Amino acid sequence: MIRIPVALPSSHYDIRIEPGGLDQLGAALLDLGKADRVLVVSNPTILKHYGARVQRSLLQAGFESASLALPAGERYKTLRTVERIYQAALDCRLERSSIIVALGGGVIGDMTGFAASTWLRGVRVVQVPTTLLAMVDAAIGGKTGVNHPQGKNLIGTFYQPSLVLVDPDVLATLPRRERRSAMAEVIKYGVIWDAELFRWLETLSDLDRLEPAQLTRILVRSCQTKAEVVVRDEREGGLRAILNYGHTVGHAIESVTNYRRYLHGEGVALGMVAAGRLAANLGLWSASEAARQEALIAGAHLPVRWAGDIATDALIERMQTDKKVVTGRVRFVLPEAIGRASIGVEVPEAVLRSVLDSLAD
Amino acid sequence: MIRIPVALPSSHYDIRIEPGGLDQLGAALLDLGKADRVLVVSNPTILKHYGARVQRSLLQAGFESASLALPAGERYKTLRTVERIYQAALDCRLERSSIIVALGGGVIGDMTGFAASTWLRGVRVVQVPTTLLAMVDAAIGGKTGVNHPQGKNLIGTFYQPSLVLVDPDVLATLPRRERRSAMAEVIKYGVIWDAELFRWLETLSDLDRLEPAQLTRILVRSCQTKAEVVVRDEREGGLRAILNYGHTVGHAIESVTNYRRYLHGEGVALGMVAAGRLAANLGLWSASEAARQEALIAGAHLPVRWAGDIATDALIERMQTDKKVVTGRVRFVLPEAIGRASIGVEVPEAVLRSVLDSLAD
Ligand SMILES: NC(=O)c1ccc[n+]([C@@H]2O[C@H](COP(=O)([O-])OP(=O)(O)OC[C@H]3O[C@@H](n4cnc5c(N)ncnc54)[C@H](O)[C@@H]3O)[C@@H](O)[C@H]2O)c1
Ligand SMILES: NC(=O)c1ccc[n+]([C@@H]2O[C@H](COP(=O)([O-])OP(=O)(O)OC[C@H]3O[C@@H](n4cnc5c(N)ncnc54)[C@H](O)[C@@H]3O)[C@@H](O)[C@H]2O)c1
Ligand SMILES: [Zn+2]
Ligand SMILES: [Zn+2]
Repeated sequence: MIRIPVALPSSHYDIRIEPGGLDQLGAALLDLGKADRVLVVSNPTILKHYGARVQRSLLQAGFESASLALPAGERYKTLRTVERIYQAALDCRLERSSIIVALGGGVIGDMTGFAASTWLRGVRVVQVPTTLLAMVDAAIGGKTGVNHPQGKNLIGTFYQPSLVLVDPDVLATLPRRERRSAMAEVIKYGVIWDAELFRWLETLSDLDRLEPAQLTRILVRSCQTKAEVVVRDEREGGLRAILNYGHTVGHAIESVTNYRRYLHGEGVALGMVAAGRLAANLGLWSASEAARQEALIAGAHLPVRWAGDIATDALIERMQTDKKVVTGRVRFVLPEAIGRASIGVEVPEAVLRSVLDSLAD
Repeated sequence: MIRIPVALPSSHYDIRIEPGGLDQLGAALLDLGKADRVLVVSNPTILKHYGARVQRSLLQAGFESASLALPAGERYKTLRTVERIYQAALDCRLERSSIIVALGGGVIGDMTGFAASTWLRGVRVVQVPTTLLAMVDAAIGGKTGVNHPQGKNLIGTFYQPSLVLVDPDVLATLPRRERRSAMAEVIKYGVIWDAELFRWLETLSDLDRLEPAQLTRILVRSCQTKAEVVVRDEREGGLRAILNYGHTVGHAIESVTNYRRYLHGEGVALGMVAAGRLAANLGLWSASEAARQEALIAGAHLPVRWAGDIATDALIERMQTDKKVVTGRVRFVLPEAIGRASIGVEVPEAVLRSVLDSLAD
């Protein structure tokens, strides 16, 4: 078992990376201290695969526990669905000392974190990510949220989990497209922070067929980077914005396609390609490194172009309602070298337009 | 202007008590630093009396501002109504640096605080309480919340305001019943913390007809007590529970009467009478001091008995679903002397029953 401590000013918790860790969940919760009731929030697919093992582990550790199956999919990441978590919390009489376990991908993790942060003004949440994206990104760092009809994650809180338990074995059942999608975030860490990771990823022959040790290395390096950034800036006052690399254009693409056409990581992949080109066009980043990024993204079977029906105008308008927009001007995170990026870079609209146009097929 | 600083580990803010302070709101917000947009959340009654003055003050200080009128009343303190605040925040393009002003009583303050703590994962909120209850209690301390059909304030956050601006002059338009109701919380501070305040209140001939200086003294002492307790225990880990004195029975009474028959403070008044009797019955508190409490409450034109249609069984059942219940057993805050109380006291059900029975007319 590999343990990555996350030491925030306000709270300390561990990320545990542990093959077969699902069976250790009950024991791990006992280490967190006083709790008797546990509510596991998940969805039907995940419960089918792992629900029984999780419940057995909790039972063996002496917890009274219940499971809630929410409908799967980003379009259910809403306040309405959170209300179902509240109802379940009420039905199984959760108390302040109880624990809610988020067993699932980022959608389940974000909603469950939000529900936990607002139920009884805060009960503890333990993240058990089951997608690669949630393992390397969503489950770490304490951002919770749900979507508003007019924008992603507009409603949310900063609320740290009490534990993140990563069992890489559960990725065996994850659809290949989901795994590939998450590689975008891993590549992101390489570009903005961890040049060694980036260069090592370039040497792998096939990101679809990783040895267990290679997968573990990817998980550890990604969790470390995310944790390091979050510890330096819990509430996104500055540095943490670096994690939004690729997300400004990425969110706009997800949004104008109604969150149906692209997975989150696919949007981020496209956003990184766009940001790379912006950085190169502005002379901030070498064209050759930007090309290496594009090659690594393409090699990971991720998209590097979008369909021509996505209008540049619509993308720009969407970016301007993004919550990171300060007084109307869109700012970008742009790479300066592999392993280093700048935040808050303003880009002239003409440059933005020409880069976005160049990426629409 | 009287300034009471509230120095929490995570944030510092001031309570300003200032007759005519409404006209200083814009200037006060300028002191808080960078913000351009302000959303004022209130209700039609309050906006009719004070909306124009508030908007003028904000305009003169150079803010772009808008007002949102929510329907008045505890029954609208719901997630649905919070969604109207989110929509207004979107419509006037609030950003992370923007400020939401809660202009109103506890209902507006609690909902607006909740919306501010969850919109864009947190924008600043300034409390401008317009009821006596909000001035002495609800606006201070950072508890936000909305009701769930099955219980009061089940959904909420801990989120500190950036400023609390108290203008006692606005109490001129407050219905007398509302003012009287809030006196219950003032008396509460006397019983649990501030014996001097209690004894001074006993000397006043008519709590309905206070001199301005007397009112100010009440506001200052109450805000000081609340702030002191909150600073020592921001997240209700221990001491802060003392502020729930009178609230266990009080909430149950409000709840079984569907929040229609009693104002919050009236419920608290009844709850304090019940708690006082419990304490006396258990030998924790002298019967004579409990009687002095009952006399002060009655003298403040607050109820000390409830109607016989409120069944003891229903009250007890409601208390057991209260969020402060730890593992099924109801615990009480009970006075030991005027100015001092114990928290977490378990009461045998037979004693509870007989006290509740004794208070039903
Ligand atoms: N909080 C943060 O910091 C943060 C960071 C990044 C992304 N996110 C959010 O995460 C969400 C995306 O998360 P995601 O990519 O994990 O998607 P997801 O949660 O929708 O999961 C993807 C799909 O995989 C299925 N699935 C999950 N685990 C499985 C398994 N082990 N086996 C088989 N099927 C499995 C799910 O049922 C779902 O249909 C977005 O809403 C995004 O906003 C949050
Ligand atoms: N957050 C906390 O720590 C805390 C503490 C105590 C109570 N509360 C909450 O506060 C709420 C009760 O607050 P409240 O008693 O202020 O009730 P309220 O907010 O409903 O206001 C009472 C009525 O007075 C009217 N009003 C307000 N100011 C007025 C003015 N100056 N002139 C004329 N009319 C005016 C309002 O329109 C409303 O109809 C409850 O929901 C309770 O849960 C919260
Ligand atoms: Zn992402
Ligand atoms: Zn109260």
